[in-house]
Amino acid sequence: MEYAAIRHDMDKRYCYALEKGKFLFRLQTKKDDLQSVVLHCQDKYLPIRFLDTRREIAMEKAASDSCHDYYEALLDMDVVCLRYYFELKDRDGAVAYYGNHDFYGEPISDIDCMFDCPQNLREEERFLPPEWAENKVVYQVFPARFATSSKVKPEKWYRAPIGHSDDLKGDLRGLIQRLDHLAELGVDVLYLNPIFTSYSVHKYDTVDYYRVDPAFGTNEDLKELVEKAHEMGIRVILDGVFNHTSPQFFAFADILEKQEASPYCSWYYIESFPVKIIHGWKKPNFKCFSYFGGMPKVNLRNPETRAYFIEVACYWLREYRIDGWRLDVGDEISHEFWKEFRRAVRSVNPEALIIGEIWHYAGDFLEGDEWDTVMNYTFWRSVKDFAAFETITASQFLERLDFLRGNLHVKTYPLLWNLIGSHDTERFLHVCGERKEKLKLAAALQLLLPGMPVIYYGDEYAMTGGGDPDCRRGMVWEESRQDPDMYRWYRRLIQVRKTYPCITGGRLSRKKTDDEQGLILLTRTMNGQEITVCFHGKEGSAALPEWKGCRELLSGRIFEGTLGAYESAVFVVVS
Amino acid sequence: MEYAAIRHDMDKRYCYALEKGKFLFRLQTKKDDLQSVVLHCQDKYLPIRFLDTRREIAMEKAASDSCHDYYEALLDMDVVCLRYYFELKDRDGAVAYYGNHDFYGEPISDIDCMFDCPQNLREEERFLPPEWAENKVVYQVFPARFATSSKVKPEKWYRAPIGHSDDLKGDLRGLIQRLDHLAELGVDVLYLNPIFTSYSVHKYDTVDYYRVDPAFGTNEDLKELVEKAHEMGIRVILDGVFNHTSPQFFAFADILEKQEASPYCSWYYIESFPVKIIHGWKKPNFKCFSYFGGMPKVNLRNPETRAYFIEVACYWLREYRIDGWRLDVGDEISHEFWKEFRRAVRSVNPEALIIGEIWHYAGDFLEGDEWDTVMNYTFWRSVKDFAAFETITASQFLERLDFLRGNLHVKTYPLLWNLIGSHDTERFLHVCGERKEKLKLAAALQLLLPGMPVIYYGDEYAMTGGGDPDCRRGMVWEESRQDPDMYRWYRRLIQVRKTYPCITGGRLSRKKTDDEQGLILLTRTMNGQEITVCFHGKEGSAALPEWKGCRELLSGRIFEGTLGAYESAVFVVVS
Repeated sequence: MEYAAIRHDMDKRYCYALEKGKFLFRLQTKKDDLQSVVLHCQDKYLPIRFLDTRREIAMEKAASDSCHDYYEALLDMDVVCLRYYFELKDRDGAVAYYGNHDFYGEPISDIDCMFDCPQNLREEERFLPPEWAENKVVYQVFPARFATSSKVKPEKWYRAPIGHSDDLKGDLRGLIQRLDHLAELGVDVLYLNPIFTSYSVHKYDTVDYYRVDPAFGTNEDLKELVEKAHEMGIRVILDGVFNHTSPQFFAFADILEKQEASPYCSWYYIESFPVKIIHGWKKPNFKCFSYFGGMPKVNLRNPETRAYFIEVACYWLREYRIDGWRLDVGDEISHEFWKEFRRAVRSVNPEALIIGEIWHYAGDFLEGDEWDTVMNYTFWRSVKDFAAFETITASQFLERLDFLRGNLHVKTYPLLWNLIGSHDTERFLHVCGERKEKLKLAAALQLLLPGMPVIYYGDEYAMTGGGDPDCRRGMVWEESRQDPDMYRWYRRLIQVRKTYPCITGGRLSRKKTDDEQGLILLTRTMNGQEITVCFHGKEGSAALPEWKGCRELLSGRIFEGTLGAYESAVFVVVS
Repeated sequence: MEYAAIRHDMDKRYCYALEKGKFLFRLQTKKDDLQSVVLHCQDKYLPIRFLDTRREIAMEKAASDSCHDYYEALLDMDVVCLRYYFELKDRDGAVAYYGNHDFYGEPISDIDCMFDCPQNLREEERFLPPEWAENKVVYQVFPARFATSSKVKPEKWYRAPIGHSDDLKGDLRGLIQRLDHLAELGVDVLYLNPIFTSYSVHKYDTVDYYRVDPAFGTNEDLKELVEKAHEMGIRVILDGVFNHTSPQFFAFADILEKQEASPYCSWYYIESFPVKIIHGWKKPNFKCFSYFGGMPKVNLRNPETRAYFIEVACYWLREYRIDGWRLDVGDEISHEFWKEFRRAVRSVNPEALIIGEIWHYAGDFLEGDEWDTVMNYTFWRSVKDFAAFETITASQFLERLDFLRGNLHVKTYPLLWNLIGSHDTERFLHVCGERKEKLKLAAALQLLLPGMPVIYYGDEYAMTGGGDPDCRRGMVWEESRQDPDMYRWYRRLIQVRKTYPCITGGRLSRKKTDDEQGLILLTRTMNGQEITVCFHGKEGSAALPEWKGCRELLSGRIFEGTLGAYESAVFVVVS
């Protein structure tokens, strides 16, 4: 037994109450090292002579990544505090008892050596992300390039490559007119890149946080957009850029004008005076996002600044009924700010969804008191490596996702924003060398796995494009530019996802990979229904003889026993 | 190389700024598995073509517990964000590169595979415990039994066994009169068990949080105590019992009187009406500390309740100038409460020390925004097992401490409240079968290691006593009852500790254990001074020939080359 790989910190990351009286326990072991883990627990304070509360629960392997297995158990016991330890049996039958970070040769009866994890009554620290968001389908729109209500010549709208400053005149009115496209596709959530006043096309350098950019329309247009979207059952998430502003934002503009005399100096990280905007590549004399002088970094340690930006967030939730915030450069802002942000935002709308932008591990932002979820760039990387580059195996693909399943809070997993591309990356079709069958596979991976798939506008019509800004081309509204087959594929995937909640919400009952053939088979069960999703990540064909003759849900046809190159399939069995 | 044991989460627990531009990195590996770890890092945003910020830093093994080694590096780089990965070489010379929770065969250049840890500007989340407290000596007083200003007959004061309700008439006035004892001993901090109005002797069931118990004296007496203590350079820590109150506390009393009609029902966890106090062993119909009906648990989720107790904490800091709070049953109160508590307390006194009572792993309370430190019951357990029971080896003793050194925030380690007994446990002398040489060893372990040693009143005179309440006997003020030899030992240990700051603050440069002989040798260096502390945890004698002829600091004599049973020694070398 590899003791060094076993981990269960007796803290809120490894044992927490999901609701009153329901505790989730998690234990990490070396991969394939153990044959069983049993959780032994009891009420911390009730002496056994009064009431024997002792319980033994077999833990289940909930996830396996490249190095570890993650065992979980759900305990149903309404107590203030628990004591517990683990009984571990390895593949050779050797048994160890693990408690208080130590290993013992026999069951632990000394109460001082048992873990002690009081959680049940700490309702205020329970992670309660909005349930409406679980497994919902997101559609991401880059507003300047999505739809326009003005007359724009097609040769301009569809021109590629596109530059950073090409303004195609996309606007909210245009978007409102296109909401039916989202509804028809089956989208649940609309995520908009920044829409507030800014002199750039991307609008990540905000000048006025209280005003929709005049090029995009008016605040009233936003209100109408949200109302119409809500009527169609679509929620709206805005992009919150609170890490930095434009130099023209009133506070920084005031510094530029009055220098040391400005009352706003403490709103930023000024390093010397005179503060000046330098063009070309030179380190500015104030902290910025990256080293872009056009994006001075906000000092959110200053209570006044903090209050300003938190009120911005609350304002749009309160007055315009938006449904949440995606937080730009979320990981460069302090935990303290995000905790305050969450409290404020949730007090305005307890159902608001908070999504952090972070490209890496986000464990410490997802403990329940900051964000609900993140842009899942691990998913993006894994889909690229499996489906586009074919540099990882089917097993490795699942292991990468299981790392998140095994390490993040269990409530976060169905909320992860699973993307295959964004306004910050090359489009997936470009990444995979324009091979549409690969984009189809990537879409299937997004839409047939748990999480919140994020469809980057136009992927459903097989739009392509290199890195920013080429990934932000004008949305293809002309039928001749659309790929109807890809659209049908996306629509069908979403339909099947929604028709069978088991696909995302079912209990994972079987997991099979065939790295030789590049095959992934996942079976989930729910209410007597059993659904198997299959992905084939290679050229040629892969045999799935066991499903021959069954109805395949994506095609609606009887399955003939093989999957073609990069094909996916879904089978359902009702017991 | 055991990949499954390697751990570095890219979050604030494994990489944080100690101060602006100084980052601490930590990596866990399997024990004795690697020969070297190198940290590779660079400014996240500055392109290498503009400025090559890449750095390589050899990491040092900072701690080793039973299963793991903990490598650390301190990086000096003033940047907003960092990217980094690790180069690991095992004992066979095999090399792996570790980044973004994955292992690679070659140096990682793909920026998406590197960690990314933005920390430097998040000053508001930096862990800033009060520096004055580092390695300071604490003296714990149980007020009812420590000193009295009234006439109490010696046969009553010194009677043993003592019962739970025996009130020996200890008071603050008596304590004030005995402050010189603390000063003479060399104590820096006085920690008082609860002193507010309560009908019990232990006073952990508070009736009035704003009034010193009349049996102990007046609020003015407390003021005088704090003033006199401060004049002598002694700080004062009070015991904060915020988890539960007495049923006679005004809010609960109101519920008992008015039942459902009381406006204070939401201050507790009432399960049914009528609420009643039941005597004898029966589950009360409201949540309690443990199941004691005499200690109803406070609902700190209620903002009003929360505000009440936080103001209590602030009041005594502000009006009476106490220096901090020890938090009773700290781990049964929510993180959310402690975060708010810390913010409030630190705004009144940024130097206040916050110590949580928790008997187990406290990682999630010690991330910088809740407590500064904890009652170190791991230390208590380890000293008992090593010095009293001799059930663990010298190496295992160090491993247990290194678990804390390797897992907790580096700033917490010199603040850990290292105890060998308390008002809640048997006295150490009792635990070790009245063997004074073992108590001497335990005191040496407390006083010659980093951390905040907590001397439980009377240990310095070799007081004994079984579990609560026997461990709370009247303090031995009659000379005939004191052990002057033990007193001299404690005093000498403290003197040596203070004369040579290297003992606690020096860099650990050599660590040696001899499990056969039960020997621990730790060498620390500071400003050209090198100090070796030696502990011998067994019967018989242990040879230390290398120190023969040197002056031994505790005895002041020339060392003859052997340590007797359970003896300790300190040697200094000045280069």
